[in-house]
Amino acid sequence: MARVYNFSAGPAMLPEEVLKRAAAEMLDYHGSGQSVMEMSHRSAVFQGIIDQAEQDIRDLMGIPDNYEVLFLQGGASQQFAMIPMNIMKHRKAAYIITGNWAKKAWQEAQRYGDAVAVASSADQTFSYIPDCSDLPIPEDADYVYICQNNTIYGTTYHKLPNTKGHVLVSDVSSCFLSEPVRVEDYGIIYGGVQKNVGPAGMVISIIRKDLIPEEPAVENTPTMLRFKTHADAHSLYNTPPCWTIYVCGLVFQWLKEMGGLSVMKERNEKKAKLLYDFLDQSSLFHGTVRPQDRSLMNVPFVTGDKEMDAAFVAEAERNGLVNIKGHRSVGGMRASIYNAMPYEGVAKLVEFMDRFEKEHR
Amino acid sequence: MARVYNFSAGPAMLPEEVLKRAAAEMLDYHGSGQSVMEMSHRSAVFQGIIDQAEQDIRDLMGIPDNYEVLFLQGGASQQFAMIPMNIMKHRKAAYIITGNWAKKAWQEAQRYGDAVAVASSADQTFSYIPDCSDLPIPEDADYVYICQNNTIYGTTYHKLPNTKGHVLVSDVSSCFLSEPVRVEDYGIIYGGVQKNVGPAGMVISIIRKDLIPEEPAVENTPTMLRFKTHADAHSLYNTPPCWTIYVCGLVFQWLKEMGGLSVMKERNEKKAKLLYDFLDQSSLFHGTVRPQDRSLMNVPFVTGDKEMDAAFVAEAERNGLVNIKGHRSVGGMRASIYNAMPYEGVAKLVEFMDRFEKEHR
Repeated sequence: MARVYNFSAGPAMLPEEVLKRAAAEMLDYHGSGQSVMEMSHRSAVFQGIIDQAEQDIRDLMGIPDNYEVLFLQGGASQQFAMIPMNIMKHRKAAYIITGNWAKKAWQEAQRYGDAVAVASSADQTFSYIPDCSDLPIPEDADYVYICQNNTIYGTTYHKLPNTKGHVLVSDVSSCFLSEPVRVEDYGIIYGGVQKNVGPAGMVISIIRKDLIPEEPAVENTPTMLRFKTHADAHSLYNTPPCWTIYVCGLVFQWLKEMGGLSVMKERNEKKAKLLYDFLDQSSLFHGTVRPQDRSLMNVPFVTGDKEMDAAFVAEAERNGLVNIKGHRSVGGMRASIYNAMPYEGVAKLVEFMDRFEKEHR
Repeated sequence: MARVYNFSAGPAMLPEEVLKRAAAEMLDYHGSGQSVMEMSHRSAVFQGIIDQAEQDIRDLMGIPDNYEVLFLQGGASQQFAMIPMNIMKHRKAAYIITGNWAKKAWQEAQRYGDAVAVASSADQTFSYIPDCSDLPIPEDADYVYICQNNTIYGTTYHKLPNTKGHVLVSDVSSCFLSEPVRVEDYGIIYGGVQKNVGPAGMVISIIRKDLIPEEPAVENTPTMLRFKTHADAHSLYNTPPCWTIYVCGLVFQWLKEMGGLSVMKERNEKKAKLLYDFLDQSSLFHGTVRPQDRSLMNVPFVTGDKEMDAAFVAEAERNGLVNIKGHRSVGGMRASIYNAMPYEGVAKLVEFMDRFEKEHR
């Protein structure tokens, strides 16, 4: 089969250039006579790969020197525990609940202290971002936690919350490297790589160094769940997911060649506009998110008729537009249009939606 | 450069057939139009990959139905915490200390209860396996823990300990799938895949179902560190390391094509014999392990002269025999000769050692 346009929410499309290079280097990385999957993580050649990857993400995001960049395992789900276990010193934190992932993070934090939900958009099934200009954040909260782009619901914070001087912790899994950010605005900014950055099996956590405690907030936190373990060892405390680091590194190089995160933002805005503009004029399809909170990455939409939705998903798939079914908790459709989705993919989707609409009205 | 013979202790060589297939399927897995790195872990095509991988390892090892097979992240190092957190109900366990990894597991378990070292071979810098026929295992110990093959020191248990009726937990990272095992002899048998099975970033843990608790032994164990979380979700609680599962699955298929674990054992014995026989007659090199405890997988040896060792390592590398330097904690040399190392690789090493010896005596 020809390559498809894959609208999966993650794991998701990777740049074809990256896949081709990974295939070409599979049996012999840069004259080493080995695959990256085979090389010792203590070898000079692998040290070169991880060092370059770290430098490239630092360049792309403009990460200041007082932040660590950690390559960790266990996904965002493991960060949901690691964050409070490490930094919830006063056993209090403020969570803003804008979807399933923020909710899961909040629930996990409740094991370790008083995790207060200071705002929520659950009343409208998470179709908007609440007003975060003046939230009742407890004085002694160790941090304010957000999930910046909500993969399932297709909302995003276009403006960060007013944390009232507290540390901001943000899960950016589904908008990672999609546009420039000011790292200095965050205490911790982290994301699973499997949506916008690389293959599944790694989280990149960017942590202000002064937040990494000598001793974690929660006693007897496992060695592997201590930020300090990984910071001290520069992500090489134990064998890291070497292949994933390598492929993410190839993606970083691709992003640099594309022109960096400002250029990606323009591209992503252009792609999203094409789809949202179509939705806004369609008589069959409509978006489910309040316009000012729409994500550039995940675009959910429905016809209002479950059978029609199912027919659309099936016919799209036959046309090489795959994984466009909405998350099981919301139904309908969702087009995830991350960095690696070309404009042509979105254009083909819109063209197909237009044709489908004409055939079904 | 031509492909080298890579004697790394892990990550380590993979079968060339597997690498070629992974490269060939990189842009389009089985007509899906996607790379395995791009496909949704909730898709039918990926479900097929993980189901086949599980079935193949069950076939290869003869895993009974009353055992779960879990694909987990965080390496053996994370299992060092997960095991006591989940199953150390009486807060007591017996550890046999035969090397660094057993020691690290023992130290981590001490966070959660009374982890008793019931035997150790530290007196002779771990050059042997202690007599485990009649150990002082506490009556109320929840389990007896071993590291079955000691990667750094090159020792292995050729006979399992007498656990006196207690559950046996074994880390088999460096001998995983190298020979047949009786899974029924273990409560938990687990290993990091990056030595003998696949690319780094995953542990496979095979756990007798009755040992997986509804509630873990340690209160407030993170969701991601609960065996039940992963057992209930068949390793799909969150996004798993899909690519690693896929490559391990290719290795399982390769092992089946080779004839299974009995055939691998014969091959591994033949390779190891070639090297040990050479060492036993050499006047320059000698093995560091008590003969009856020698590993089939990791073969440490020394000349007794640090400068000579360094010269050997450097010259070996120039001859395409790489990563033969011993672990930093013991020095000398170590040849790791896992499943994917062909007989020809060991033959070439022995030939080179013989030549080196003649040139340096």
